[in-house]
Amino acid sequence: MYDGIVQDLIDEFGRLPGIGPKSAQRIAFHILQSPSFDVSRLSQLLGEVREKVRFCEICGNVSEQDRCSICRDPRRNPALICVVEDAKDVAAIERTREFRGLYHVLGGAISPIAGIGPDDLRITQLMQRLADGSVQEVILATNPNLEGEATATYLSRLLHTLEIRVTRLASGLPVGGDLEYADEVTLGRAFEGRRTL
Amino acid sequence: MYDGIVQDLIDEFGRLPGIGPKSAQRIAFHILQSPSFDVSRLSQLLGEVREKVRFCEICGNVSEQDRCSICRDPRRNPALICVVEDAKDVAAIERTREFRGLYHVLGGAISPIAGIGPDDLRITQLMQRLADGSVQEVILATNPNLEGEATATYLSRLLHTLEIRVTRLASGLPVGGDLEYADEVTLGRAFEGRRTL
Repeated sequence: MYDGIVQDLIDEFGRLPGIGPKSAQRIAFHILQSPSFDVSRLSQLLGEVREKVRFCEICGNVSEQDRCSICRDPRRNPALICVVEDAKDVAAIERTREFRGLYHVLGGAISPIAGIGPDDLRITQLMQRLADGSVQEVILATNPNLEGEATATYLSRLLHTLEIRVTRLASGLPVGGDLEYADEVTLGRAFEGRRTL
Repeated sequence: MYDGIVQDLIDEFGRLPGIGPKSAQRIAFHILQSPSFDVSRLSQLLGEVREKVRFCEICGNVSEQDRCSICRDPRRNPALICVVEDAKDVAAIERTREFRGLYHVLGGAISPIAGIGPDDLRITQLMQRLADGSVQEVILATNPNLEGEATATYLSRLLHTLEIRVTRLASGLPVGGDLEYADEVTLGRAFEGRRTL
């Protein structure tokens, strides 16, 4: 619809997740028409991100060094490991400021449909981290969906051979939610996990 | 939340229109984790878009040459000019394949609130294009909102001094829409503009 580069830029933005053709067009025109938008900065960051950013050799989180800022932090409790599917989940949990242990990023979840088995995840690396016996608790924080639950079940069986406490994040009603609109599985879980007040 | 470059890239994507913090994070991780995504191509296009893309000296549409592909096309009817607010509107009208004339991009609409007056739009250039008397009809295709209507009214008064037919795009019910859910202004316009069958 447009001449060369503008259309190419729209197409390229349209390849990114969550950006449809209309959004891609809006973004391309914003870049073209807003002198305040720093094109060279975005361009430079795109070049640097793949070059300089890698994955922490311990936990698999994103990092610009061999070890990520969490694994390097001496104030974090190394006896607690929270297992997540993705590096984005690390950021989500960090935002809660509730957890002061370390992480282990699996790099996905077991999904027979997507052809992802235990061997495709960073499970061997997790077992290596647990081998010296210094870890007291592993919190399984995979997503509360089919794949995440399957992964948690698989890991809990594997970890029960070790002398480590294995826990799973609570399922229940989301805070600020409405009981009436909760799905029956979530509501059922909220009953199962009810606490004495 | 993240180390240096990843967070910088998230922030930079978050500056683009329609991209919130979560989408920006998703995009940054996609770029980081998908080897198939061509980072250098996006990076290169970002550099080229401001450098090579300019605005057609006749109509104001985006173009990599002095004149855009529509103004250069000898098959387009030069006696018909469709006036739009933005270059994105040109693409929207082109997709209909209903219009075979030329365009004139105003670069916005009259908006006292945003401090945009007639002098901020490409109205002088429009009058120059109409000066030689070869244009027979000007179609005012500004948006059917307050600013667009004000701009169309302003232009129609200005153009009535010339011997040119001035028309406005029809307002009415959107095709595939539901009468019950139409707002009263749109429904009123649909009555006003009713056609004999």
